[in-house]
Amino acid sequence: MNRIPRIVILGAGYGGVVTAIRLQKQLNYNEADVTLVNKHDYHYITTHLHMPAAGTDKPENARVDILRLIDEFKVDFVKSTVVQIKPHDRKVILEDSTLSYDYLVIGLGGEPETFGIPGLKDNALSIRSINSVRHIREHIEYQFAKFKQEPHRKDYLTFVVGGAGFTGIEFVGELADRMPKLCKEFDVDPSIVQIINVEAAPTALPGFDSELVEYAVNVLKEKGVTFKIATAIKECRQDSVLLATGEEIKTGTIVWTGGIRGNRLLEEAGFETSRGRVIVDEYLRTKEYDNVYVLGDCSIVLNEEGKPYPPTAQISIQQAETCSHNLVATIRNTPLKSFKFHNKGVVASLGRGEAIGVVGKYKIKGFTAAKMKRLVDIRYLFIIGGIPLVLRKGRL
Amino acid sequence: MNRIPRIVILGAGYGGVVTAIRLQKQLNYNEADVTLVNKHDYHYITTHLHMPAAGTDKPENARVDILRLIDEFKVDFVKSTVVQIKPHDRKVILEDSTLSYDYLVIGLGGEPETFGIPGLKDNALSIRSINSVRHIREHIEYQFAKFKQEPHRKDYLTFVVGGAGFTGIEFVGELADRMPKLCKEFDVDPSIVQIINVEAAPTALPGFDSELVEYAVNVLKEKGVTFKIATAIKECRQDSVLLATGEEIKTGTIVWTGGIRGNRLLEEAGFETSRGRVIVDEYLRTKEYDNVYVLGDCSIVLNEEGKPYPPTAQISIQQAETCSHNLVATIRNTPLKSFKFHNKGVVASLGRGEAIGVVGKYKIKGFTAAKMKRLVDIRYLFIIGGIPLVLRKGRL
Repeated sequence: MNRIPRIVILGAGYGGVVTAIRLQKQLNYNEADVTLVNKHDYHYITTHLHMPAAGTDKPENARVDILRLIDEFKVDFVKSTVVQIKPHDRKVILEDSTLSYDYLVIGLGGEPETFGIPGLKDNALSIRSINSVRHIREHIEYQFAKFKQEPHRKDYLTFVVGGAGFTGIEFVGELADRMPKLCKEFDVDPSIVQIINVEAAPTALPGFDSELVEYAVNVLKEKGVTFKIATAIKECRQDSVLLATGEEIKTGTIVWTGGIRGNRLLEEAGFETSRGRVIVDEYLRTKEYDNVYVLGDCSIVLNEEGKPYPPTAQISIQQAETCSHNLVATIRNTPLKSFKFHNKGVVASLGRGEAIGVVGKYKIKGFTAAKMKRLVDIRYLFIIGGIPLVLRKGRL
Repeated sequence: MNRIPRIVILGAGYGGVVTAIRLQKQLNYNEADVTLVNKHDYHYITTHLHMPAAGTDKPENARVDILRLIDEFKVDFVKSTVVQIKPHDRKVILEDSTLSYDYLVIGLGGEPETFGIPGLKDNALSIRSINSVRHIREHIEYQFAKFKQEPHRKDYLTFVVGGAGFTGIEFVGELADRMPKLCKEFDVDPSIVQIINVEAAPTALPGFDSELVEYAVNVLKEKGVTFKIATAIKECRQDSVLLATGEEIKTGTIVWTGGIRGNRLLEEAGFETSRGRVIVDEYLRTKEYDNVYVLGDCSIVLNEEGKPYPPTAQISIQQAETCSHNLVATIRNTPLKSFKFHNKGVVASLGRGEAIGVVGKYKIKGFTAAKMKRLVDIRYLFIIGGIPLVLRKGRL
């Protein structure tokens, strides 16, 4: 190969942006052309989106301009939407152009998994992007304004959150924190507001330490959240949620956090997928094409017991480090590295000053956990933008 | 009459609140019982509502707690909604109780006049209360959030204002000022936003000096407002406005400022009304009952040429002064005063730093007029709350 190899990275989420940043550090001049493609000209910090969704923080604090993160002399940035991936032709079709590649990195993220629940796709909101969280925030405020015009419509002030996993729990925590402020702003009696968290699994935060789950549920109940655990949603209607128990909750707002699946473009590209996700090899490549890497929410990495790791920011960032190493190694013809996930712990926020977490073998909760959550956020800012970004966005 | 006469004031708008304040100053101890009835526990400054409606000011700056304005030792305040007025029985039916009176002051304000335009009542918003302007503000922000989720729906960012009278013109001025901020907040290309002001009359601000009207229209066009003058609205639909010209404007927002009529309770009470308004006698009393006074938007006062004065804050306040005088005079058996309107001039805001006005024989415009508008607002605060209120809300 006597021309410079072209690396194309699709998506500037955790996986894509960290891969791009690592490549621009590791590659020498003229060793490869790197192009990063993203729908927006900003990267957003998905783990922070529950706050602007509830309105407890500004969307601006959950995003960073991509051109502040990458060095345009080393990485080309293309703002466009991916329409089709053609791995056989080594091409990516964008909305307005076509890119050829030698190596492809797919980090296109996930889509809400609706599990076939009727009406969910049309009637539920989901926390998945800056635009979607602005929509949720405005939708919530609009319900208050509408209620004041039609005070018999208490259903406007019933907020149903589907799913009590990580996102669901963190979101209801913020939502509960926001309510007193909204009630004051709109002259609403706080006792009218209801936040109902519905989860089909037999517990909130499935898979989490049960002592911490109990702590979390109590903190959130104290803040006014009602839980309906082990209760499936049967149908989402325009003005209500029907539960498997037969109960119908009249509501103007359903926020669905019940799960995600991989981006549809991967199955359309012909990769073998499970819920839209590609099971990657030990080097994070697809089994069909060894020049295509898949990261983050559209990839599946199996643990030692052969079970998939849950999709998190943490695993995406670690995948990006392995992926960038392996791309450089392939170009230089040096040995590839196998991916191994190092669980550094997990912290879930429960709103202001409250959180729970597991770090190594320690369980943490309350204020300590909330501080730890902040550290995790700051650490990520440091990874992608160094100290200047920590200083600019460090209040996260 | 050996018991203390009872005065009931319905509505704490300009007319009602100023009457209550004047009575509490003028009446001696035990000369009369005064009760003020209002739906909310606050008075709002209707002439300021175009700002919170557009989101350029907080609703809080357009309202004052009633208990800060009246002296509870002298005036009883009842927070309730009037259901029926029974002038023959000298009773007022409230939502949850009944009041008897010897003298009644009706200052219940107006309702939007829809002129029978199909769909207007159901599909248009109107600037008429704190709750309604919060609704408008949230509705507008929600359109931006929805547009970002469905970028092909440019109709979400088309804002139609029906009526280019005082309220319409002041509102589009504020709306135009707000748009750049909203565009920035939601990452929207400002060229997509349209503000269209539709007026059936042959000119904007009908009745106003034509040189000033031209000035106003040019200022607002410069801010991005499109005018469709001499163009009637034929129908309001859920997602569009149909004009008499046959043109259909696709829009998610119609704010109707095209006129008001009197409160329906007056015609239901059996008073002779014209568009819900009662033509009062020279002392501001109904022709049917000389113990019932009607003020403000639900009254009609004829000028020397026999034509009704347009309903304004200014005339309501002056009516309240005459009304309170006449109530005290009746109780003391001293001569009543005829109402005479003193036109102190009129100023219309055109958004930040711009206004037009006529004061005496002077036409004013631009920054001078904007300062005058501020003075008018401050003067009113002084009338109802004295210097303390001016200091608290003086940034109006």
